[in-house]
Amino acid sequence: MDSRGFREAAISSIDEIINYFDNLDKRDVVSTVEPGYLRKLLPAEAPLEGESWTDIQKDIEAKIMPGITHWQHPGFHAFFPCAASYPSILGELYSAALSGACFNWICSPAVTELETVVLDWLAKALGLPECFLSTGPTHGGGVIQGSASEAVLTAMVAARDKYLRETVPAELEGDAREDAIALKRSRMVALATSRTHSSTQKAAIILGVRFMTIPVGADDNYALTAPVLAATLAKCRERGLEPFFLTATLGTTDTCAVDDFAGIASALADHVPPGTPGEVWVHVDAAYAGAALVCPEVQQATRIAEVSKFHSFDMNMHKWLLTNFDASCLFVRDRAWFVQALSVNQAVYSNNASDGGLVTDYREWQIPLGRRFRSLKIWFVLRSFGVEGLRAYIRRTTQLGEEFAGWVRERKDLFEILTGPSFALTVFGVVGKDEEEMNQRTRRLYEAVNATGKMWVTSTVLDGRFAIRMVTSVNKTERAHVESAFQTFVEKAEDIVRP
Amino acid sequence: MDSRGFREAAISSIDEIINYFDNLDKRDVVSTVEPGYLRKLLPAEAPLEGESWTDIQKDIEAKIMPGITHWQHPGFHAFFPCAASYPSILGELYSAALSGACFNWICSPAVTELETVVLDWLAKALGLPECFLSTGPTHGGGVIQGSASEAVLTAMVAARDKYLRETVPAELEGDAREDAIALKRSRMVALATSRTHSSTQKAAIILGVRFMTIPVGADDNYALTAPVLAATLAKCRERGLEPFFLTATLGTTDTCAVDDFAGIASALADHVPPGTPGEVWVHVDAAYAGAALVCPEVQQATRIAEVSKFHSFDMNMHKWLLTNFDASCLFVRDRAWFVQALSVNQAVYSNNASDGGLVTDYREWQIPLGRRFRSLKIWFVLRSFGVEGLRAYIRRTTQLGEEFAGWVRERKDLFEILTGPSFALTVFGVVGKDEEEMNQRTRRLYEAVNATGKMWVTSTVLDGRFAIRMVTSVNKTERAHVESAFQTFVEKAEDIVRP
Repeated sequence: MDSRGFREAAISSIDEIINYFDNLDKRDVVSTVEPGYLRKLLPAEAPLEGESWTDIQKDIEAKIMPGITHWQHPGFHAFFPCAASYPSILGELYSAALSGACFNWICSPAVTELETVVLDWLAKALGLPECFLSTGPTHGGGVIQGSASEAVLTAMVAARDKYLRETVPAELEGDAREDAIALKRSRMVALATSRTHSSTQKAAIILGVRFMTIPVGADDNYALTAPVLAATLAKCRERGLEPFFLTATLGTTDTCAVDDFAGIASALADHVPPGTPGEVWVHVDAAYAGAALVCPEVQQATRIAEVSKFHSFDMNMHKWLLTNFDASCLFVRDRAWFVQALSVNQAVYSNNASDGGLVTDYREWQIPLGRRFRSLKIWFVLRSFGVEGLRAYIRRTTQLGEEFAGWVRERKDLFEILTGPSFALTVFGVVGKDEEEMNQRTRRLYEAVNATGKMWVTSTVLDGRFAIRMVTSVNKTERAHVESAFQTFVEKAEDIVRP
Repeated sequence: MDSRGFREAAISSIDEIINYFDNLDKRDVVSTVEPGYLRKLLPAEAPLEGESWTDIQKDIEAKIMPGITHWQHPGFHAFFPCAASYPSILGELYSAALSGACFNWICSPAVTELETVVLDWLAKALGLPECFLSTGPTHGGGVIQGSASEAVLTAMVAARDKYLRETVPAELEGDAREDAIALKRSRMVALATSRTHSSTQKAAIILGVRFMTIPVGADDNYALTAPVLAATLAKCRERGLEPFFLTATLGTTDTCAVDDFAGIASALADHVPPGTPGEVWVHVDAAYAGAALVCPEVQQATRIAEVSKFHSFDMNMHKWLLTNFDASCLFVRDRAWFVQALSVNQAVYSNNASDGGLVTDYREWQIPLGRRFRSLKIWFVLRSFGVEGLRAYIRRTTQLGEEFAGWVRERKDLFEILTGPSFALTVFGVVGKDEEEMNQRTRRLYEAVNATGKMWVTSTVLDGRFAIRMVTSVNKTERAHVESAFQTFVEKAEDIVRP
């Protein structure tokens, strides 16, 4: 494919993409193919001779599209959104063209420096405390990771390293030191609540450290509070375990609960005072709901200033801020914690800029070595929409969630809200005479609305209650789509409750 | 930005990208900006109101390009290539448009299924043993990771899990089991040679397991051989350490050495017979040179069939196979090893297809949860170029490396080849009366040629010898560019040797 061929192919791809977005609501949301559908449609081997773009492109609509679940469809009310926008697609396009494995500053200074600058922009827009800025007093800063899972893993590795550095006596050497570290490792425990995203548990598995779940329930709206945390810390001390890491969540996956940051800080201060050796690293997982912090009223309501007592904070631009996957933005209060834990040197990467210590080498802030130019799309999105444009989008889709919950509340004959609306998420079920009937009815409703193909909701289980999660934060979702979804819920529920 | 605005913006971006590629050789290879250059050019905060695309786009050439090091420049002879091609850029474009966090099959069946199919295509094209195919007898298969570092980490987590499962007595329960595991962990050691990529050491740091370096030297051309491995295994037994993981390399970072796969297999069989509990997991890191396996003559020369005795194999399409970063292709002999180690369930991800066990959920084959539609670009590249097209490219650029080495060899008055040519990489230095003079002269040459701006080479250190790495495998590099690079080496070296 030469430059002329590429121009033609690219324009035709752009037209196909525009057509896709403009007519998205005519497609079913979820793919209905059978497992293994694609293998039957494709040859068993790569072609020996090259094929024309025309032949390749026509397979996208013919073979790929039937197998696509449309995350940007106005009827996508599942999980959390993961939507692109036109400016973010342009960012990915330029990033692909400027391909490089930009692990060091010199590998493309712009890749490193734009990332530092736009993550400072983002931290300010989110109202994060100054300690998370690269220019802040504690030498913090942000780095783009591929996902919130990589962010929590990176934070946990740094936390373990910091904890061992602070608690294994510096005078120990050789075998005695190895033994002391092995003993410590066997006692260290990472904490998360029963509603924390599973990525914290997965990180603990990867690190090979213990993991303990703190039970949280409906009484506290599924959020972590000071007394519950204090009780867990006491239990750890009793059992000789050493907590070194806690994930606190702003917007849990099931219900968008917000943990009590001030309460967490106070319970931890009673355990090991902050800033003293052996303190518990607190990572704030704001993967989805962190986006809403662009609105000052959300900064206030969540008391986001409290996170200055914590160690790392992560949110995904690729969920609710109009940026295509992947762009998980991880901020740390002291960047030396990452570098001390993750820096591994090799002669072939030696260069004057890095060796001089004047620049950031983001490979020392992450698990992988190489990295894409992901800050371009964040830059394009922040500039194209402007902070006010992002606020308007968050407020509009949050409002849709409140309206939906309002309508649900009016039909007490059919529905019961379990949690929310919180950050455009309402969790609800169908009424019934007992838990078994409620669960059975709710599951039938869930299957019935999804079977329409016009919308997709996902489910969760809260204290034994099967529940439907209804999310209204996809950009293309308008009031009419939510109304229509509600009507579908009502019609199907009426069939179930009064057959 | 509406659809019309996007069409205009995208076409103008495509034109800028074409212009970039068509005129790449007029730019200096490496950016010459000073650290901190970009912050001075950008506002301190994101704009409140959105900006026009025209304003955003003009900043790419004005502010970003000066900070770009051009990895696709014909004079890029550094590290290894990391180049895009037009078809791969189109793949990234569609992938961005179809954004979704495709962790489960149902999240977009096509994302999972195309990945399985094209990785089977790739495995066949590379001549990998059948055990690494998804359709093979051992239930193996491939998964796309972000980088070779993530691949080795994923493999090591699975290896640790497998080793503990096999060696900790199943009858132990509760505290006794915890204690046995803690003891095992403290003895387990991951092995790599002094020339293995640092990502293996980084993975060991992340896992919190011991790491041991096997020294390899010039006598063995920096490759791992049976006797050296056997000696290390004996040392481990003596010290009470338990090796559970070894990285074998096809094309080391410094010199493109190929470890002796048959020798490794034989030394390991003497330690713990393959297939018996406690066997050492062997991960083959073929990040760069694995691409050359598309040529049957390379499959033969490297005896690639031997890797059927090993456990995982990784190569990067994004280095030497015309695919933009990131596309690291990791193959495993038994996919259950990944799933057993990395599967963590959460109610919100429950769905009929996954719960029925009929489909692949790639989140269980990797560290992150969410994932991009990366197989599209691999599909486009394999189809656009065809396997013969890729072979022609690998052979042409390998040949350039041989020619370069031939010219270097003819100037014994100036140069000495330390290793190669191997996979388009020649490692060489300037002659001198002793090591100190050779190193000093080589460093001066290295700095002088890079100062021209017309080419970029990187360096390494081999047994105390500072050496220049000259790579000729970027797609845009033609014979004329290599000739011109050689002339530059000669001119600058003559000034240094005979001032």
